[in-house]
Amino acid sequence: MVEEQVRMRPKAIDGEGETLIARIMATVRHRIAGRSLTPGAKLPSIRSFAVTMKVSKSTVVEAYERLAAEGLIRSRPGSGFFVAAPLAPLSLADIGPRLDRAVDPLWISRQALEPGEGVLRPGCGWLPPSWMPEEGLRRTLRGLARGASSTLVDYGPPLGLLPLRQLLARRLAQHGIEAPPDQIMLTESGTQAIDLLCRFLLKPGDAVIVDDPCYFNFHALLRAHQAKIVAVPYTPSGPDIDRFAAALEEHRPRLYITNSALHNPTGAMLSPLVAHRLLKLAEQWRLTIVEDDIFADFEETPAPRLAAFDGLERVVHIGSFSKSLSAAVRCGFITAPRDWIEALTDLKIATSFGGAGFSAELVLTLLKDGSYRKHMETVRQDLARAMAATVARLGESGIIPWIEPRAGMFLWCRLPDGIDAADLARKALDKGIVLAPGNVFSHAQTAGSFLRFNVAQSQDERLFGELAALMAAARR
Amino acid sequence: MVEEQVRMRPKAIDGEGETLIARIMATVRHRIAGRSLTPGAKLPSIRSFAVTMKVSKSTVVEAYERLAAEGLIRSRPGSGFFVAAPLAPLSLADIGPRLDRAVDPLWISRQALEPGEGVLRPGCGWLPPSWMPEEGLRRTLRGLARGASSTLVDYGPPLGLLPLRQLLARRLAQHGIEAPPDQIMLTESGTQAIDLLCRFLLKPGDAVIVDDPCYFNFHALLRAHQAKIVAVPYTPSGPDIDRFAAALEEHRPRLYITNSALHNPTGAMLSPLVAHRLLKLAEQWRLTIVEDDIFADFEETPAPRLAAFDGLERVVHIGSFSKSLSAAVRCGFITAPRDWIEALTDLKIATSFGGAGFSAELVLTLLKDGSYRKHMETVRQDLARAMAATVARLGESGIIPWIEPRAGMFLWCRLPDGIDAADLARKALDKGIVLAPGNVFSHAQTAGSFLRFNVAQSQDERLFGELAALMAAARR
Repeated sequence: MVEEQVRMRPKAIDGEGETLIARIMATVRHRIAGRSLTPGAKLPSIRSFAVTMKVSKSTVVEAYERLAAEGLIRSRPGSGFFVAAPLAPLSLADIGPRLDRAVDPLWISRQALEPGEGVLRPGCGWLPPSWMPEEGLRRTLRGLARGASSTLVDYGPPLGLLPLRQLLARRLAQHGIEAPPDQIMLTESGTQAIDLLCRFLLKPGDAVIVDDPCYFNFHALLRAHQAKIVAVPYTPSGPDIDRFAAALEEHRPRLYITNSALHNPTGAMLSPLVAHRLLKLAEQWRLTIVEDDIFADFEETPAPRLAAFDGLERVVHIGSFSKSLSAAVRCGFITAPRDWIEALTDLKIATSFGGAGFSAELVLTLLKDGSYRKHMETVRQDLARAMAATVARLGESGIIPWIEPRAGMFLWCRLPDGIDAADLARKALDKGIVLAPGNVFSHAQTAGSFLRFNVAQSQDERLFGELAALMAAARR
Repeated sequence: MVEEQVRMRPKAIDGEGETLIARIMATVRHRIAGRSLTPGAKLPSIRSFAVTMKVSKSTVVEAYERLAAEGLIRSRPGSGFFVAAPLAPLSLADIGPRLDRAVDPLWISRQALEPGEGVLRPGCGWLPPSWMPEEGLRRTLRGLARGASSTLVDYGPPLGLLPLRQLLARRLAQHGIEAPPDQIMLTESGTQAIDLLCRFLLKPGDAVIVDDPCYFNFHALLRAHQAKIVAVPYTPSGPDIDRFAAALEEHRPRLYITNSALHNPTGAMLSPLVAHRLLKLAEQWRLTIVEDDIFADFEETPAPRLAAFDGLERVVHIGSFSKSLSAAVRCGFITAPRDWIEALTDLKIATSFGGAGFSAELVLTLLKDGSYRKHMETVRQDLARAMAATVARLGESGIIPWIEPRAGMFLWCRLPDGIDAADLARKALDKGIVLAPGNVFSHAQTAGSFLRFNVAQSQDERLFGELAALMAAARR
């Protein structure tokens, strides 16, 4: 394999020559900007690119040399031309296709996170402050204010607070997941847990399966890792298993990231049958599954956990207390195969140093004193009531749930008459209402007529009045 | 460029043939394990590899096909053989060269983070709990326990608590750094801040300059990003500027990460002259500088800040309160060029979602009520006393500081008679003493006879007795 070393240069370039050179240069720039050519990648050989672009080799040579003079590419004598390292910073927008800002996954996160008086947030992914165990948190803080000084000022140990890991091990055992405390590592959040796993397992360009629809931040996170997202349609009992098998065969993905108990955004639950088939496929294709179970304590009747069937061989189990206890107290965890924990701990220290001992102590106290259990009982009852009420009120505007979930806070709803959800969300924002349009959750952009409602955030009468008006206007 | 499609196979392979095939397979395995061939990379063509390895093409074909059958490589008809996606997870150890565990940057972090009764930690990078503002923290926690419920249960806003960012802007202005609150983003820690910047700016293989010696976690962090570490010797007034210029020319680095005010581990301060030259070079070579200023509040007389000279054009300024206020309360910040903040915020949300509103509120309260200022005055006085005492006591064992720092907690000391610091650290660990051997801080491994002492962690008489005994034994 000998790389051609073309050294000829045209003596003079006419107008048409300039046009052709400009076209070649634009094509290369476009490929670099669109990241089909990434930094360090080899450019097409002069000969083959001349054939592809239907120009002479000397035109390609001239275009390459001008791009090299600009610093965009560089030549390595004897091996050809390569994309130079980026000088301008990459942003997420450069990494993935930039969607319309109203259906951008990060847009909805930021809208939900931005404070704003009187803004209604039915599209938000968590409970309103008034639903959280405020009194328990205040009491625990007063207790910690009197507690050990190390909790107040020291870094936590590398794996995280041992008594909390012991308690988590017992809680996981109730779901059939056998994880000793030394196979559990505390993190700052469920998101940090998944991020660490992606750092550990993925290289840029690796394929990762997600559900379609799925939690929108999976898209943002995977884009940040430059992973290739492969979306498999989700059914009321889990991923479409035939499509899943086909995706494995076609893309050889490294990972599958999902919620098995209460699926976000649909509220569906994985059936034992689908779980079993999924694990057989995972074994056959040596696929790792990340089971993001942050809504575990919202379920009424236990759904199967992939980690329980699998015994933590190919399944990594993630949890957190941001949704059930407090989003201000950051504490998540990873339960992973034994021989991964050491390297994951090194990676956590390298990228965020010590863990949050204080948050862990706070969670531990609330879990131990029984107030967390009582709080979640109340939340589940209140959610069931809010679910029924929201289904009824949305129905008045013709907004119908895809399924009626058995638990949780989410309702995945279809809009009638092909009304565009992103358009509705933009108009709702003008009225001070943050909706979550379906395509934010859909990599394949097949959920343009869906909205996700958080029933706990849909308790204000104004919401339904405004929605009815917006729907009526959209129908006209 | 036509890839050969060799389809010949030997009819029978004799013993010698088997040996040759095994040798080719071992070579490929070795290159993949050592990551000179990374997943997705094309293997050498059959013809060229046969020439390189001095075997027949059919031997290479057979070796490749066996490796493909094992799943380690795969063939793409018409284009050759490629390294398959990794099935075993990558660890940091795979990414970088694995050092002797006793001088591994992560080993020292973990030793320092692991709890242990009666263990002395002169090698630790932070203050002992008794030096921290415990009473202020307890009082603030009691206050927050009575405070707004949103602080207790909600996610923080995307950029982080506005009143804290406003206060940080005023504090930065005192160092001459003009950063409006909307150019400041809160993070969980200084480490997370640098990690986000690396994610934002680096691609695998990009070169990054660090000081030699430097904070050891920079090595671990950069290895996690698969950056190429370029170490430039540090002098008492900053990096060796000629070597720095040469490194820019040779490696075209993307970033330089440093502490400008109080350098870790040496306690040196950047001189205005070196700062000015550094910034001129940064401009000339389009280099971004990350100024990690987490020891800002330990300094007695203000050192120049690169971000102040530069006006946040090419310098990103990082801070945190883990070292001065509490390591359990995670709160850091980034001050960056205006047009980076939006993308950095997106990246923070994608990878860790909401920030720690609770920690930010806690830091804000302590900063506002004056207790932080008084606390740091006391810390600086106590450190000055501890510094003088530690210099004297270490001198008795012939351990001499490289410079006497003007402030801070670190003493960078040379061992006499070519005593090996890593060896001493291993022996000290048996006595329950965690030392920080010099090569942990040195990418070029040129600090084998240095130790970093934290003077605040060197107040126990037992330390000097044990050190004297260890030194005497090492001299024999």
